[in-house]
Amino acid sequence: MAPVLRLARNETGIEAVLSRLAGQFGDRFSRAAAVREQHGHTTTRIENQPPDGVVFATSTEEVAAVVRLCAEHGVPVIPFGTGTSLEGHVNAPAGGISIDLSRMDRILAVRPEDLDCTVEAGVTRKRLNETLRDTGLFFPIDPGADASIGGMAATRASGTNAVRYGTMKDAVLSLTVVTPSGDIVRTGSRARKSSAGYDLTRLMVGSEGTLGVITEITLRLHGIPEGIAGGVCPFPSIEAACETVIATIQAGIPVARIELLDALQVKAVNAYSKLDLAETPTLFIEFHGTKAGVAEQAEIFEAIAADFGGGPAVFATKAEERTRLWQARHDAYWASVALMPGWKGTSTDVCVPISQLAACVTATQDDIAETGLIAPIVGHVGDGNFHVLVLADPADDIMNAKADAFIGRLNERAIAMGGTCTGEHGVGQGKMAYLPGEHGGALDLMRAIKRALDPGNIMNPGKIVAL
Amino acid sequence: MAPVLRLARNETGIEAVLSRLAGQFGDRFSRAAAVREQHGHTTTRIENQPPDGVVFATSTEEVAAVVRLCAEHGVPVIPFGTGTSLEGHVNAPAGGISIDLSRMDRILAVRPEDLDCTVEAGVTRKRLNETLRDTGLFFPIDPGADASIGGMAATRASGTNAVRYGTMKDAVLSLTVVTPSGDIVRTGSRARKSSAGYDLTRLMVGSEGTLGVITEITLRLHGIPEGIAGGVCPFPSIEAACETVIATIQAGIPVARIELLDALQVKAVNAYSKLDLAETPTLFIEFHGTKAGVAEQAEIFEAIAADFGGGPAVFATKAEERTRLWQARHDAYWASVALMPGWKGTSTDVCVPISQLAACVTATQDDIAETGLIAPIVGHVGDGNFHVLVLADPADDIMNAKADAFIGRLNERAIAMGGTCTGEHGVGQGKMAYLPGEHGGALDLMRAIKRALDPGNIMNPGKIVAL
Repeated sequence: MAPVLRLARNETGIEAVLSRLAGQFGDRFSRAAAVREQHGHTTTRIENQPPDGVVFATSTEEVAAVVRLCAEHGVPVIPFGTGTSLEGHVNAPAGGISIDLSRMDRILAVRPEDLDCTVEAGVTRKRLNETLRDTGLFFPIDPGADASIGGMAATRASGTNAVRYGTMKDAVLSLTVVTPSGDIVRTGSRARKSSAGYDLTRLMVGSEGTLGVITEITLRLHGIPEGIAGGVCPFPSIEAACETVIATIQAGIPVARIELLDALQVKAVNAYSKLDLAETPTLFIEFHGTKAGVAEQAEIFEAIAADFGGGPAVFATKAEERTRLWQARHDAYWASVALMPGWKGTSTDVCVPISQLAACVTATQDDIAETGLIAPIVGHVGDGNFHVLVLADPADDIMNAKADAFIGRLNERAIAMGGTCTGEHGVGQGKMAYLPGEHGGALDLMRAIKRALDPGNIMNPGKIVAL
Repeated sequence: MAPVLRLARNETGIEAVLSRLAGQFGDRFSRAAAVREQHGHTTTRIENQPPDGVVFATSTEEVAAVVRLCAEHGVPVIPFGTGTSLEGHVNAPAGGISIDLSRMDRILAVRPEDLDCTVEAGVTRKRLNETLRDTGLFFPIDPGADASIGGMAATRASGTNAVRYGTMKDAVLSLTVVTPSGDIVRTGSRARKSSAGYDLTRLMVGSEGTLGVITEITLRLHGIPEGIAGGVCPFPSIEAACETVIATIQAGIPVARIELLDALQVKAVNAYSKLDLAETPTLFIEFHGTKAGVAEQAEIFEAIAADFGGGPAVFATKAEERTRLWQARHDAYWASVALMPGWKGTSTDVCVPISQLAACVTATQDDIAETGLIAPIVGHVGDGNFHVLVLADPADDIMNAKADAFIGRLNERAIAMGGTCTGEHGVGQGKMAYLPGEHGGALDLMRAIKRALDPGNIMNPGKIVAL
């Protein structure tokens, strides 16, 4: 279990806030140990640091009232969506109040002519897409989990479609945010673009609840493409797969998804999702466009893959087959964990310039082999972003120490190659130690912004800029 | 001439800095009246407020040295690129030092495999594209002027390609910035995406020199498309043209450019650029893709246009014809000014949700007619962004007062329709008055950020957050 930062608790303030919240929120406030632990829990190996109480908010005004109360007493506020973050984002190292936004789950407006919608923070991405289906529109950002839109905005999430449709930074048009003083502000208009001042929307996206609580989100939507072609393509090596990705993007093919699984990950996926793919580095690919357009894209891709010794690509002819393939891709984490029953998995991610991807992945594979770990690799390679799922026996301290050291080297390797210590998982508690190496003096600007907007340091303290 | 904010001058500090700079920079420092006036000048009706001296910097380190000196003496610093901004961005209302970055014009790296490049701030967009041509890549952002990349980043510029390729917010991967204390920081890595902390890159993009001086920019590039189809399509009304735009985008056609000219603007363009277009609302359009792909896109577009009574579209068959059409579009400002020899033109821009575009443009046309102004309209309608080129006789005070009042109503109309007071020109001095109406309490967050990063208020004071 990775060590975490411990912060001093403001016991007097916490007690005062707890008693006030109990009176105000009744059965929408909980101090039960199980509820508190669940709200500190994330899909992470970082130890649990539960909040002192959990409020289930139902409106922006309620969130503002809780934040004002906490601000008055100097008590930490930790926003909570679905608890699927990976780096300890919802832990409460100084205690405080978790604001659970899952009951703020209304879809407030869908505007097909503007290709946008406005939702409350607790709406999950799958439910949004179910609601949108009849409009011919969809919301493309798809992290593995069925995360809340608020949490996805807060962590600047992305997923398999990012190479074509961007990340939450691109998907969010505007936010309603409760500031650390409990004011309610809107960070932008519904205009597609604006030059009217500082980009508060992008500042809040990825701020992980440290600058305010995101309560409503206006999102860009996209038309469901007329034609979709998806499939898999095996390669003799990581390098061959990466060279194919680079050449495909340089050729201007607007690939919608292009995902790399290393041989061990393919093996895990075969076993878990009952597939029979060749156990070699493999690209999962998808093209969106007109029917003629996707056929043309697939043809050009196959020719490029063949140039690098890859193929033959197998395209799914039916939508169900395609769904099954992508479900298998999204289940890669569970497939990996299932490789070693009883062991725990840690999912860590880095992102490098695409020219460095093959070198970074193969150096990482060598490191895994030398360290004696079991750690499949899967990546959003169109963006140069990849995940390593490090498996370890929780009872084996030496193995866990080796895993920690390996993760440290992975992050430093990515930064040394001109990349970042996290492409999409966020900083939380787990990646703070790498920010000085990645950002240098720019980290001081982040700290100055945090101090300016949250002088009492009540918003999700102990995260991002706390080291 | 629009009134501007006047700020107190720090005469002692300015004198101290001027004498130090004269010694340090020799003939790369100027106090000549013509040079100073040119560095306060912008393509704007806002009165000239020249700086006290101009430094022609040649490196990031030199910029940092000048900023440190100015910080020490509490003297304003105004970054200058090509002077093509439209809202008084480079004026010096408290005097101070203009740092001219035009001699920082090196293209530091082009990396075709990563589809990115790094340039100094003074490189202009046209020179970048000339340099890139042999690589098969291009940089798509095209404001009317041949602006510097640093200035485009500072104002969050866009242009005709934004509907497909985004704005400077999307084009910039990372910046080198000299902070208000004279430190040199890098806002991000070359990774395509990152969740590693606050998005300093997007905070600096559009900050108009008020948070630091941008000295180097790493940009995303795109492959020159294999197929390009471009042309013009006449419509019976603004509504018909706007409905066609909405339906085209909803149909998932990845249109590269889609520009609306109202009848008066077409008349101006015909006269200035020797074209013979029908003088009716007209869309200029362009599609990028494979050869088969663009033919398919054009066909679908024509069918949609016909549904709304538009067409026939005329597609340019040769590249020269296409270039001539788009040159005419880029010359719309000069064509408008040429309508009334001796008069001055003011280019103002707003952006609304696309569903509101037809209503906003027609209400604006009615306002122009009722006010008795001559003011052609041209717009990046795929984004809901349009420009009004307000013409007025500089000797006619009543006409200029009417023009001012009209521009005020235009901005308020756009904000009331869920839009923004500027889609791409920026705030500078000219749009500050509209920010409280657009942003409400969020403006306080912008002010807090400004105070935190620039406590001495030396970076381009009197802009964006100064009201």
